[in-house]
Amino acid sequence: MKIAVDNTATLEELGAAAQAIGVEIPVVVELNVGMNRAGVEPGSTAVALAGAVHEQDGLRLAGMMAWEGHTLDIQDDDARAGAIQQCIGQLAASVQAGRDAGLPVEIVSCGGSGTMDVTMHQPEVTEIQAGGAIFGDATYQMWGVPTDPALFGQAVVTSRPAPDRIITDAGFKTLPGMERQPKAVSLDNVVNISASAEHGVITLSEPNTSVQVGDVLDFIVGYGDATVFLHDAMYGVRDGIVETVWQVSGRGKLR
Amino acid sequence: MKIAVDNTATLEELGAAAQAIGVEIPVVVELNVGMNRAGVEPGSTAVALAGAVHEQDGLRLAGMMAWEGHTLDIQDDDARAGAIQQCIGQLAASVQAGRDAGLPVEIVSCGGSGTMDVTMHQPEVTEIQAGGAIFGDATYQMWGVPTDPALFGQAVVTSRPAPDRIITDAGFKTLPGMERQPKAVSLDNVVNISASAEHGVITLSEPNTSVQVGDVLDFIVGYGDATVFLHDAMYGVRDGIVETVWQVSGRGKLR
Repeated sequence: MKIAVDNTATLEELGAAAQAIGVEIPVVVELNVGMNRAGVEPGSTAVALAGAVHEQDGLRLAGMMAWEGHTLDIQDDDARAGAIQQCIGQLAASVQAGRDAGLPVEIVSCGGSGTMDVTMHQPEVTEIQAGGAIFGDATYQMWGVPTDPALFGQAVVTSRPAPDRIITDAGFKTLPGMERQPKAVSLDNVVNISASAEHGVITLSEPNTSVQVGDVLDFIVGYGDATVFLHDAMYGVRDGIVETVWQVSGRGKLR
Repeated sequence: MKIAVDNTATLEELGAAAQAIGVEIPVVVELNVGMNRAGVEPGSTAVALAGAVHEQDGLRLAGMMAWEGHTLDIQDDDARAGAIQQCIGQLAASVQAGRDAGLPVEIVSCGGSGTMDVTMHQPEVTEIQAGGAIFGDATYQMWGVPTDPALFGQAVVTSRPAPDRIITDAGFKTLPGMERQPKAVSLDNVVNISASAEHGVITLSEPNTSVQVGDVLDFIVGYGDATVFLHDAMYGVRDGIVETVWQVSGRGKLR
């Protein structure tokens, strides 16, 4: 396990905690390469923080990382690739400056599922942080990730109030529509899926009377990042047989 | 406990289940008065279903209900009140038609926190379903509900990457921005609060260097309906003392 830092306050607390229990924690310095969330600025600021990590008892400087997540919204492929390369260039330059200053910057980590097609070809990069793509959900599909859908939710039809409307028991507590709506696997003419707390409302462009109350519908989840933590367990299914159950052990660990 | 139905399929299953264990389940017929979610159409369709409930062994017809939730978006007070009264008029007429047909329609239930200021004055109504207003969250405030804020989330400042940006450990898994963003209780000049999975990003209109990494910030939650189920427990606090802990026992009961 490694910890990313972007400030000296947490650095000193981490170092003190590590020393108190007699361990050394590997630390990567987090850079802001344009997403404007967490992260120190690239260049001299990043090198200075890397130096402070290196000097801090209880910690071991392991590398630098960045997340170029803001490039996901760029539609044009060439423009997107260029923006990603520009981000990784800032990371690589900071790494080089750190090494030039004698710091042991080994890990150069970046990327995510939506940028790995570009970042994996940058020679300076040693590690890609892609994870979400494994589910191939509707949001990662939107971002052009070529993995197959692997995470599904089921809903039971609880009401058929009109031929163009199906009501299910899966609202935003089960199949959230954040980023992207879930996709019905075997249902045609779906215009929209909206979610109240415990109601899913599927609007159809053509009348349908074959879907009945009590039917079970499968959905590709809209966004795995916004779905997995809502559930206590995931079921591993192969050829229609449940082979394993994975508890979502991190769920609710918010304090 | 009562159960709302809007179709005969669940009616028959409910009746069979009730008979199998030797109980009688009180049932209300759910009407669609314009929200276009679940519910049978008012008038003769609703009366026919109420009659079917009355005839079903294992069930007892208890009343009729509706939810005029679509009126929440009407900004003008008079127009909103008129729309709500029109909805309740449809419910009341269906109830009267049921009673005229000899059916024991006792409960006339409708409303929610955002409409109760109107529905509580309709003489036909016997029950209001208001609940969410107890938290006085940002969404219910938007809907004009006059209750005080009573549900708060806490977040720890994990990063101060720029004077106009505060990063916290509360993303959409903790303090979701669905319907309405959370509101910082004691933080001025907040332009926007956005949420990644585990990052909250607070953008300020004025530089702020007094908020430090490690500080704890309180937030009025954006929407209690979208927040409570994400947590394992709620803490009842009076005068700064935790007096009780309520487990969120329904959380995760999705199967």
